[in-house]
Amino acid sequence: MALSKALDAFTAEIDAVLDEFIESPDGPEARLFEAMRYAVLLGGKRLRPYLVVASADMFGVRRACSMRVAAAVEMVHAYSLVHDDLPCMDDDDLRRGHPATHKKFDEATAVLAGDTLLTQAFEILAGHETHEMAEVRSDLVHALALAAGGHGMTGGQMIDLLAEDQTFELPQITRLQAMKTGALLAFACEAGAILGRASGAQRMALHGYAHDLGLAFQIKDDLLDIEGDAATVGKRVGKDAAAGKATFVSILGVERARQQAQMLADQAAAHLHDFGADADQLRALARFVVERES
Amino acid sequence: MALSKALDAFTAEIDAVLDEFIESPDGPEARLFEAMRYAVLLGGKRLRPYLVVASADMFGVRRACSMRVAAAVEMVHAYSLVHDDLPCMDDDDLRRGHPATHKKFDEATAVLAGDTLLTQAFEILAGHETHEMAEVRSDLVHALALAAGGHGMTGGQMIDLLAEDQTFELPQITRLQAMKTGALLAFACEAGAILGRASGAQRMALHGYAHDLGLAFQIKDDLLDIEGDAATVGKRVGKDAAAGKATFVSILGVERARQQAQMLADQAAAHLHDFGADADQLRALARFVVERES
Repeated sequence: MALSKALDAFTAEIDAVLDEFIESPDGPEARLFEAMRYAVLLGGKRLRPYLVVASADMFGVRRACSMRVAAAVEMVHAYSLVHDDLPCMDDDDLRRGHPATHKKFDEATAVLAGDTLLTQAFEILAGHETHEMAEVRSDLVHALALAAGGHGMTGGQMIDLLAEDQTFELPQITRLQAMKTGALLAFACEAGAILGRASGAQRMALHGYAHDLGLAFQIKDDLLDIEGDAATVGKRVGKDAAAGKATFVSILGVERARQQAQMLADQAAAHLHDFGADADQLRALARFVVERES
Repeated sequence: MALSKALDAFTAEIDAVLDEFIESPDGPEARLFEAMRYAVLLGGKRLRPYLVVASADMFGVRRACSMRVAAAVEMVHAYSLVHDDLPCMDDDDLRRGHPATHKKFDEATAVLAGDTLLTQAFEILAGHETHEMAEVRSDLVHALALAAGGHGMTGGQMIDLLAEDQTFELPQITRLQAMKTGALLAFACEAGAILGRASGAQRMALHGYAHDLGLAFQIKDDLLDIEGDAATVGKRVGKDAAAGKATFVSILGVERARQQAQMLADQAAAHLHDFGADADQLRALARFVVERES
C-alpha cells in the first residue's frame, strides 16, 4: 500500500520533531523527560499528526508550522494512552508491543509524564513559531482544549470506564467513540484548516470527514481486537470481549461492522469533494484506516 | 487580620465563577464533572486566583477578564493536588479536612478529573471573553504552560518524588520548591501583568515578588507541617519528617526557617516599590503568607 510507505516516511519526520521538543534537562527531573520521550517515541501509526499535515498541506501551510501542531496533537494522543494504560484505568501492561510507560518507569512518573505532555502541547500551540497570527495560535489552543476535555476525549474515557456496568446500544457507543477518539481526530483535521485560515465551509467539510473517519477507525479497531493477533496489533487483544464491554462488533456483529466501517470510510471521502485532487492524501487515508491490519 | 476577611469574600466570588465553569452535562460523563467540581470547590485559600486579580487590579483590568484567568489558575492548582494525592504519588487520603478526590470517587475518575481541569484551564485562557486581543490570550496560554510543565510544576513534583532517596541541601530544595509551587504562583502574578499589558520592568518586578512570595509560602508550609495540628492545617502533618524528606525546616532548623520566611516576605514586598499604593493588596498578602496558621 503506497500510503503505508508515506506514513513510514512521515513517522521518521515527526519523530525527529518530537525528539527535539522533548529535550532532557540536567537535573533530577530528567526522569520525567525520559518517560515523556519513551511514551511519545514508542511508535504508533502517527495517524493524527499525519492528518494535521495532510490537511494543512491543502491550504499551503508551511511544514515548519504544521509539523509543530502535528507534534502537539501526537503529544496529547500519547498522554491519553499513558493515562489510559494505568492500573486504575484500563490496566494495560503492554502498548505497541512494549512495556507501557508505568511498567517501564513507575505509576507516579507515568502520571506526571502524561500531565507534562498535555501541558507541553499547549505550550507548542501558543508558541510564536506556530503561526505569526496570535488569533490562529489562540484558536488552535481553544479547539484542542475542547477536543481533549470533558466534552471530548476525557469525557469519552469516563464513559468508557463506566461502560462495563451499563448496557450500551449503538447510539451510546457511537457517542462514546466520537468523544473518546473522534474529537482529537477531528481536531487534527480542523487544525490544518485553522492554520490555513480556511473558510467556514472548508472547516466544516474537514470536520465531517474527520467524524466519519474516526468512527470507521474505531470500528476497525474493534474488529482487530476480535480478529487480530497480539503480535501484529501490538497490544492485548480480545480484552473488550473479556471485560464484557459493548463494542461496535458486539452490537453489529463482524460482518455488519465491516460493512459499516467501509461505508463510513466512503462517506468520509465524500465530504472532500470540493477540494478536488488536493484531498487525495486524505482520501487515501480513509481507505487505509479500514484496510489496515494493525 | 483584614486580609483574611478579604480572602473570605474573594473565595465566595471565585467559587461562583468556578461553579459556573464546571457545568455538569446530562450523559454518563457527569461523574467526571462532579469530581472536577468536588476537587475545585473543596476549599483552600484561593491564594493563586487572588494573586491574579490583585495583580490585574493594579493595571485596571476588568474583573470579568481577570476572574476568568483566576479560575483557570485555580483549576491548574486543583488538578495538581488531585494528582499529587493519588496513591502512586504522595498517597494522601485527606485534603483540606475532606476525603481526597480519589477517595471520594475513585482513582480513575481522579486521574481524569485532574486531566480535564488542566485542559479546561487552557480552554478558558484561549476563550475570546478572556481578552479582546488574541496576543494576550496566546501569551497567557504560553506562560501558563511553561509554569505548569516539566521546567516548572510537574518537574518540581518529579524531583519531590525522588527526594526521599537523595540528600538535598538548601540549593536543591530551593530549586525544587521554586519549580513545584513557585512557578504557578509566579504565573498568577505575571498573568495580571499580561492582562494589563504591563511594561517589561513591571512584569519583572511582579515576577520577583512572586518568586520570593512562593519560597516564603513554602517555608511557612514546612513550619506548619512541623508545628501545626491536622485539624487546623486540614491535611496530614509531620508527613515530610516521617518520610525522611529534606525540607527547609529540616535543613535550617525552626528558628532560622522562620527568619528566612520573614526575610523573603519583606524582600517580596520590596520588589513592589515602584507601584506605590496600588500594590498594597500584594504587600498585605506577603505578610499574610508568613503569618497564617493554616
